[in-house]
Amino acid sequence: MLYTKPLARLIEELEKLPGIGPKSSQRLAFHLIKLPAQAVQNLAKAMVDAKEQIKFCSVCSNLSADDPCDICKSPARDRHTICVVAEPRDLVALERTREFKGTYHVLGGMISPLDGVGPEQLKIKELLVRLQGSEVNEVILAINPSVEGEATSLYLSRLIKPAGVKVTRIAFGLPIGGDLEYADELTLVKALEGRREV
Amino acid sequence: MLYTKPLARLIEELEKLPGIGPKSSQRLAFHLIKLPAQAVQNLAKAMVDAKEQIKFCSVCSNLSADDPCDICKSPARDRHTICVVAEPRDLVALERTREFKGTYHVLGGMISPLDGVGPEQLKIKELLVRLQGSEVNEVILAINPSVEGEATSLYLSRLIKPAGVKVTRIAFGLPIGGDLEYADELTLVKALEGRREV
Repeated sequence: MLYTKPLARLIEELEKLPGIGPKSSQRLAFHLIKLPAQAVQNLAKAMVDAKEQIKFCSVCSNLSADDPCDICKSPARDRHTICVVAEPRDLVALERTREFKGTYHVLGGMISPLDGVGPEQLKIKELLVRLQGSEVNEVILAINPSVEGEATSLYLSRLIKPAGVKVTRIAFGLPIGGDLEYADELTLVKALEGRREV
Repeated sequence: MLYTKPLARLIEELEKLPGIGPKSSQRLAFHLIKLPAQAVQNLAKAMVDAKEQIKFCSVCSNLSADDPCDICKSPARDRHTICVVAEPRDLVALERTREFKGTYHVLGGMISPLDGVGPEQLKIKELLVRLQGSEVNEVILAINPSVEGEATSLYLSRLIKPAGVKVTRIAFGLPIGGDLEYADELTLVKALEGRREV
């Protein structure tokens, strides 16, 4: 009986969220109770609405309220290039640069046998279908340089190259503003490997 | 058009919460969308229910779905002692110790002229009413050792003592498991001041 029942229930629900431990959960709950009722209803509604309205784009598998999504629908995007990412948040990171004008394909994860994620759990079949008889001439793999990312990139390039489509991978190396002295060895190895003539 | 509309809306609402920045807000939103619809509804409902159902106990001003609250109602609590705390979370921290068997009084904050909080914004009048002609013989001030906490404690002790009620304050000093070498100076000053004969 530390907390009155509706408060205990709220703290318990908040604790299920990622990165929210018992302390944050308690703090958030006390904060929510202090808010105007309207503000709490807005947050609750935004959550339920997002869950109800957001589906996957049937073309690129990105999260979207519309199908196809805004990017796949847009006449301004270059349909010759598909940038393959693991998660919707990676797509968002790339869109923020405002540099890439092509379209995307969201895999929904990376190949990871330890986590029971094989190629069939990812939207790879859908990517191959998109490539068939299409105008795409380059697939850019924008996948993290982790073990799973390497495996996924290798798998995809082996699958796509025979179809005569160019497969590239984003560059890995020293981040801008980074310092050689403080960079980890793997990053330096990648930076050396990826060196270019100037 | 980085995010589809319901997602942008959810991220915006989550960002209003304390300690949730743009990154966490995005991460939470993506997490919520991946959850089963039922789980999202449970969380949304817990928030709205908590806000709707939780009121203040008319005796001690603690948050409670019932009035009076479970502690004020309980025949097992000692009505001769009132422990005064600033916030409901302080009450919870004390209840966790399972040591205190008296009742509580929640002020709803501390005196802080800089934030525009004077004694009249706190539940001090309610505390005095409780003390009038009651069986209470000790008021324990369990208020943080901050500038605001000191001011509030001093104010309360001056107000309550003339009524013939004993006023005590919890001890401040080196925390258990703490190390003299690493303790801050103010804590050490308090620890010295509060020394007791052994």
